[in-house]
Amino acid sequence: MADKILSISRRTRETPFTRRVEAAGVKGYTVYNHMLLPTFFESNEVDYWSLCNDVQVWDVSCERQIEVKGPDSERLIQLMTPRDISKAVVGQGLYAPLCDENGGIVNDPVLVKFAPGDWWISIADSDVRLWARGLAHGLGLDVRIREADIWPLAVQGPKAEELVTRVFGDEVPGIRFFRSKMLEFRGKEMMVMRSGYSKQGGFEIYLNDPELAEPLWDELFEQGQDLNVRAGGPNLIERIESGLLSYGNDMTLAHNPFECGLDNFIDLDADIESISLPALRKIKGQHVHQLVGIVFDEMMQIDSYDIRHDGRVVGDIRSLVWSPRYLRHLAMAMIKREFLSQQQSVSIDGKTGKIVDLPFDFDAIM
Amino acid sequence: MADKILSISRRTRETPFTRRVEAAGVKGYTVYNHMLLPTFFESNEVDYWSLCNDVQVWDVSCERQIEVKGPDSERLIQLMTPRDISKAVVGQGLYAPLCDENGGIVNDPVLVKFAPGDWWISIADSDVRLWARGLAHGLGLDVRIREADIWPLAVQGPKAEELVTRVFGDEVPGIRFFRSKMLEFRGKEMMVMRSGYSKQGGFEIYLNDPELAEPLWDELFEQGQDLNVRAGGPNLIERIESGLLSYGNDMTLAHNPFECGLDNFIDLDADIESISLPALRKIKGQHVHQLVGIVFDEMMQIDSYDIRHDGRVVGDIRSLVWSPRYLRHLAMAMIKREFLSQQQSVSIDGKTGKIVDLPFDFDAIM
Repeated sequence: MADKILSISRRTRETPFTRRVEAAGVKGYTVYNHMLLPTFFESNEVDYWSLCNDVQVWDVSCERQIEVKGPDSERLIQLMTPRDISKAVVGQGLYAPLCDENGGIVNDPVLVKFAPGDWWISIADSDVRLWARGLAHGLGLDVRIREADIWPLAVQGPKAEELVTRVFGDEVPGIRFFRSKMLEFRGKEMMVMRSGYSKQGGFEIYLNDPELAEPLWDELFEQGQDLNVRAGGPNLIERIESGLLSYGNDMTLAHNPFECGLDNFIDLDADIESISLPALRKIKGQHVHQLVGIVFDEMMQIDSYDIRHDGRVVGDIRSLVWSPRYLRHLAMAMIKREFLSQQQSVSIDGKTGKIVDLPFDFDAIM
Repeated sequence: MADKILSISRRTRETPFTRRVEAAGVKGYTVYNHMLLPTFFESNEVDYWSLCNDVQVWDVSCERQIEVKGPDSERLIQLMTPRDISKAVVGQGLYAPLCDENGGIVNDPVLVKFAPGDWWISIADSDVRLWARGLAHGLGLDVRIREADIWPLAVQGPKAEELVTRVFGDEVPGIRFFRSKMLEFRGKEMMVMRSGYSKQGGFEIYLNDPELAEPLWDELFEQGQDLNVRAGGPNLIERIESGLLSYGNDMTLAHNPFECGLDNFIDLDADIESISLPALRKIKGQHVHQLVGIVFDEMMQIDSYDIRHDGRVVGDIRSLVWSPRYLRHLAMAMIKREFLSQQQSVSIDGKTGKIVDLPFDFDAIM
């Protein structure tokens, strides 16, 4: 496909950072939670090396925060996820699939217990707010659910800690992975968490005042000049090399967490009330597909996402990228387990790809 | 803003028509219900005249069909909308806002009673499926809810009836507005409704077999050659001139139907069980904003969507387009009723726009 223009309207919402993103020369967007998500500035590859070598600032406002407040908030959150949230501490992030009564994945957010009775769901690309409201209304729960006025800004890359420390102070290095602190910028406290959608290290700043968006962006670029700070966004190459899943790409409502290798985020034996657990207990071990990696030695051009064997469709490619570091074409694919038990490779367009576990183990591959 | 590239992935889903859309030279897309929606081929303006003078074929697969089946399906649909659906007949389309317990608009779909106990919700851009599943689970309703394998294709324009008749036969002209017939293409029956997101007349074909997508597309172009058939999409100019609302642009979950002039689609006094009715009865007459039209004599370049008066924000522009037919800049704007009771115009960037009712009455304007 040749490049296409994105038609932008109020429906594809701008963010408090959009003017700065535009000024930084963004070239591509996607639409995520009905909001603009910058995808690349120079090119996927140039952006990739900047992310891996230096530090980038990402407008990830589209990681909308669904705020669930009230006496029944923890009960509702637990109903939505099969992961046991009872031991969460304030300020902690928990990666947790949300699953419906069939065990299908509704979203794979980071949950944050912001305060007792006040949870944030930092969502991937689906309208979790509507599902939560439907459940709460139907069950008569005492909660208030809204999309909060919070716009996350990610700072990612090996020099991210240095940069965020310069802007938010000496408490930053003490923040552990998926933990947060309330830190001040221009007199306003906001949550700063060690997290982000890359494996290059970094932080997410949960901006809670749109008036501070441009000052914060500018301060990061001023303080980061000698660190080669650049504008960026979730990078297709880096996220696939790192095996980070993308909801809507690698998994959908039609898939369950076992198929995606998310077994570790499900507490099948916990004594908790969660609407997906009865279905998930039945599905366990019986799931049809498995998300795997595929490594092609050659560069690929694919016509169809389908993966065929002896004329039958045995799976489909969900994500695909050329790795400039490993000089391999890397895919994530959802493949029938029956096929996986018999075959170690697939053939697409006459080229053979080796099936591997996720995340990719490049020491073994190379 | 300069044009930006849309980064396309599995998450921004292709449709069974995408290959034909690409071959027809699509230049722009938006993302709608996590799916590609073609927005223009030549330019908004060239496409506009083609739509108004001849006939166009639109890939509106992104109008996803949420199928609600089962003994409680009608009850669930009625809970979701404040419009009385009890008198709907099979095959009829009903434009009906869906509203939550606060009266906020969740979506503004066309409801279709496909058969008793089998409803289709032809949705605008929000995950109605999740809301419906949440409600159904919470209330313990006996329904099955899924996104159906149906991909609507619209044929719009003054020559649409002629073209659809050539392809689907002589029963087509007898189909009344928002009514449908099951008609055959290549031996397969599918729903054909007189409907579509323009005021130029036309039909929507609810394709239910992806294998027939390209044959149907090709047949329409072959039979429509002498009618100047072209590929198109919902046209920004035409839809604003025609006063057609766009969910996510002109209205959101933060707005209620009264603010959007949808009073006629709410049955406040009906003896029906609908979760938004208690709130809507209270809001009636008390709503804060009103969606209105604004007509500017000059071409506009706006920096901000905010509409200010005496330094205060009194509303915001939701949609804006230059009309090549009327040589006016047309806006839809959500404005405080308090302001509307005092003023007949707004001033933006030094230019004065006249406030008018929607839909635009060009006889009165010109």
